[in-house]
Amino acid sequence: MRLSPPARCIAVTGFMATGKTTVGRLIAEKLGLDFVDTDELVEANAGRTIPAIFEEDGEAHFRDLESAALRQALGRRGRVVSTGGGMLLRDENVAELRAAGPIVCLTAAPEEILERVAGDEGRPLLNVDDPAGRIARLLRDRAEAYARADYHVDTTGLTQEQVADRLIDALAGDPRARWLCGSRTRVPVQVEGGEYDILVGSGVIDKLGDAWPAPECGRRAAIVTTDTIGPLYAERVAAALRDGGWRPTVVEVPDGEASKSLEVFGEVCDAFADAGLDRGSTVFALGGGVVGDLAGFAAATYMRGIDLVHVPTSLLAQVDSSIGGKTAIDIGAGKNLVGAFHQPRAVFTDIDVLSTLPDAEIRSGLGEIIKHACCFDAEMFAFLSERPHVFAEDDRAAREYLVARNCQIKAEVVAADPLEQGVRAVLNYGHTVGHALERGAREWGLRHGEVVAAGIVAESRLAVELGVSDDETAARQERVIAAMGLPTSVSGVDVERAREALLRDKKIVNGRLRMPLVPEIGRYVIVERVDIETVADAMLTVLD
Amino acid sequence: MRLSPPARCIAVTGFMATGKTTVGRLIAEKLGLDFVDTDELVEANAGRTIPAIFEEDGEAHFRDLESAALRQALGRRGRVVSTGGGMLLRDENVAELRAAGPIVCLTAAPEEILERVAGDEGRPLLNVDDPAGRIARLLRDRAEAYARADYHVDTTGLTQEQVADRLIDALAGDPRARWLCGSRTRVPVQVEGGEYDILVGSGVIDKLGDAWPAPECGRRAAIVTTDTIGPLYAERVAAALRDGGWRPTVVEVPDGEASKSLEVFGEVCDAFADAGLDRGSTVFALGGGVVGDLAGFAAATYMRGIDLVHVPTSLLAQVDSSIGGKTAIDIGAGKNLVGAFHQPRAVFTDIDVLSTLPDAEIRSGLGEIIKHACCFDAEMFAFLSERPHVFAEDDRAAREYLVARNCQIKAEVVAADPLEQGVRAVLNYGHTVGHALERGAREWGLRHGEVVAAGIVAESRLAVELGVSDDETAARQERVIAAMGLPTSVSGVDVERAREALLRDKKIVNGRLRMPLVPEIGRYVIVERVDIETVADAMLTVLD
Repeated sequence: MRLSPPARCIAVTGFMATGKTTVGRLIAEKLGLDFVDTDELVEANAGRTIPAIFEEDGEAHFRDLESAALRQALGRRGRVVSTGGGMLLRDENVAELRAAGPIVCLTAAPEEILERVAGDEGRPLLNVDDPAGRIARLLRDRAEAYARADYHVDTTGLTQEQVADRLIDALAGDPRARWLCGSRTRVPVQVEGGEYDILVGSGVIDKLGDAWPAPECGRRAAIVTTDTIGPLYAERVAAALRDGGWRPTVVEVPDGEASKSLEVFGEVCDAFADAGLDRGSTVFALGGGVVGDLAGFAAATYMRGIDLVHVPTSLLAQVDSSIGGKTAIDIGAGKNLVGAFHQPRAVFTDIDVLSTLPDAEIRSGLGEIIKHACCFDAEMFAFLSERPHVFAEDDRAAREYLVARNCQIKAEVVAADPLEQGVRAVLNYGHTVGHALERGAREWGLRHGEVVAAGIVAESRLAVELGVSDDETAARQERVIAAMGLPTSVSGVDVERAREALLRDKKIVNGRLRMPLVPEIGRYVIVERVDIETVADAMLTVLD
Repeated sequence: MRLSPPARCIAVTGFMATGKTTVGRLIAEKLGLDFVDTDELVEANAGRTIPAIFEEDGEAHFRDLESAALRQALGRRGRVVSTGGGMLLRDENVAELRAAGPIVCLTAAPEEILERVAGDEGRPLLNVDDPAGRIARLLRDRAEAYARADYHVDTTGLTQEQVADRLIDALAGDPRARWLCGSRTRVPVQVEGGEYDILVGSGVIDKLGDAWPAPECGRRAAIVTTDTIGPLYAERVAAALRDGGWRPTVVEVPDGEASKSLEVFGEVCDAFADAGLDRGSTVFALGGGVVGDLAGFAAATYMRGIDLVHVPTSLLAQVDSSIGGKTAIDIGAGKNLVGAFHQPRAVFTDIDVLSTLPDAEIRSGLGEIIKHACCFDAEMFAFLSERPHVFAEDDRAAREYLVARNCQIKAEVVAADPLEQGVRAVLNYGHTVGHALERGAREWGLRHGEVVAAGIVAESRLAVELGVSDDETAARQERVIAAMGLPTSVSGVDVERAREALLRDKKIVNGRLRMPLVPEIGRYVIVERVDIETVADAMLTVLD
């Protein structure tokens, strides 16, 4: 299932006496969402009861008030909105509801409805001589309108609790509503010889021991982390692992790229041996990209390879580097020159840790998210365009969607090309220029997400120059980057050094390069034999 | 094809005038072997011609002289022996010939035989009135005897050169004669995702460039070797690689286990980068086990893995460590604690390099050869029993057989269990006790082959103790070990330390161990739950 942006609200409607208000309230309570009933809102706004409005101003006026109340109810995110049974009669209401999220319609057998409403005076539509006939007619009249709902539950013979539970089950599988259901998202990753899961959600690190228990009680495990992340989360992870039967040891390394050295690598492996890790042990990599690379390489090579579980704590690691099985350390001759492909057995991506990240750390990961949106997902691109500051909003559903959807995209690319021999090239969008900018920077000030953003701007212009794309497509990319607070051009870069770095790109063959470019938002093409001088010209346009 | 010990000789026999002497001489010349004709030997021994012997003493006496000449001719290894057409008439001659090697029989159409012998006075059997009838009768009479030959060639219409070439083709495919044909032996190794070849033979290192050419001319390669092996062979290997289009760089590390450090590993990878090695490069590991492990791990991890070709130069590396894909380095916490499974793309095993090895280096490899013989190959065990000093004999055919057959055994085990999870356990025969002896040694004096030999003696006694085997089977193992000059017991080992090392064996579960044992020569069983104290008692019997 392709993951879609979170619904704003869940609408519960249906015929009278099907329990939509009570069930809506129950659902809201179970999911920790707010609850609004449009009938109550109409009455509160008007200062009159609905029977009074019907009597004094007629049904048409009530329907106007009802539409206004609906717009008001849908105005905030994260609500369960229950609406009167006639709400679906108006097209404009249906459009509003559709845009906001899934529509659930409750029904019941006519006899049961009649029984439920017996003696209820507050139902103006049933103040007639033949209520049973009236119910049957109304049901017939509204059948078409009710068919417009996404989910239908026949409540006949069910308790309201049972109806609520059925609905939550259905909504947890809905591409948009799932985010409101508090369910964790499982993103499966196909790799050679098997499959593993990325579990994305709130509080998943506390579930590590349940989800990845020790093969036998007391088996040793290592949590590799940094002196920045360790104090925040290592004890929580260790406690979760102890619950799962592990005897975990925390191995802390200094924060920063310098820890990706042979020396620190050796210390980590020595620590594994000292802690008694054996072939049945697991290494838990708790941290950002540096920890993932270092601990991943240690897990890949300690005793010729033991199990690895990633617990990424930076946005960049969550949406990019924890997926794909690449591990590496740096040697004197260069960064990432020594490494291994070692697929994790699982990835636990806790979106709550993003709350503690400084803004700069968030920005670091945004470059890859924009890259994925440009190349693969117009819907996510539109979502980012509408809500460029989404990560500052503290909206759990939105975060879970963005992280999970980006994991899903990366996982699909990796599955298609596990050893980085073909289509994985698409992941390089924005990076050819981005890497050159990084190398040309006069000092360490540019974040990865920032150079990638500027790289995307340059490469989107290159696509126009090559006739692969058009001005508007390039402009849209630039606009979303700017809106998200990322640079569309960079300063402090030495032009000559950046140019040299570009010309030394290892992928160049005879002055030409194979590059992924974006012909329209959400789609990529791999363009063969791009002249490197043309790329250099495009790079110049993003240098201040 | 299961490889068998080399034939001593190749026998060429056949009817008169089929060219057996000329063809035999041609074959000997082409294969670089000696040539002996039993008819010539009979005449030389008797000081008379064969017609004279027939005339003076009769055919029966000639047959006696002929049998004696045959035993004389087969007395030395590496000969082509051509014999008279009647040689196969006597059972004892056939037995002698069979034991020595394959028997080739040449035939021809009777008319062609008559034509070839026309006017030849030296053929006593044709000194009759009706030579054509006589030929037909003789052919009929001898049909049964000739059927006892292993190979038959109808020479009718062929030149002698053509007959010789056909025979050499046939013999190159013969399990015993192939070693005399100067052909290199290709041992295929099945690994996950493919197959690679071990090429065993004389001078194969000079063929490296032909057999493993650069993917494109000028591609960089590295030859990793030691300061002991490098001066002897690196330039020859480099020259061969240059012929294959490579631009090789020699990376020399100090001889000895100390080079399996993280530090030297980093230096090797830095050297790869400095030499411009990229993902299309190949690392050639030229040396013994240390180089194979170190260069193998570097190839496994440099740029997350590039191609590796082993060129093993010690007997131990040739018959054992170059096969199986295990690579490793040492860290502070222990030997081989960091490593990777990285299958080579090819192994080039040059048996000529064994000539330059000191005796102690040869002994180091004999332990594994004896282990393979005990567990897998009664025929090789018999060969070793007969020729315990075979490696001192400078017999190319015998070396090629032993190295190739041991590669074949190891390759079959590895193919069945590439990641060391099951049957590879058999390779541990002699090693449970052997490793404990090694760890208990008071000083570094015992070679790997020596502790394994003593380990085999101990474990063969353990098998008797457990009722798995019998005294004679154990005694045979001890005898061959002693005959080959390896220790059946060791001194200088601290009993307590060895005992402790044994009890700390990582494979022990609840005081019990899964061990391969030898119920009869050439076959193994995996015995479950062997009590470690019983193993310790067996170890005590080999401590001086």
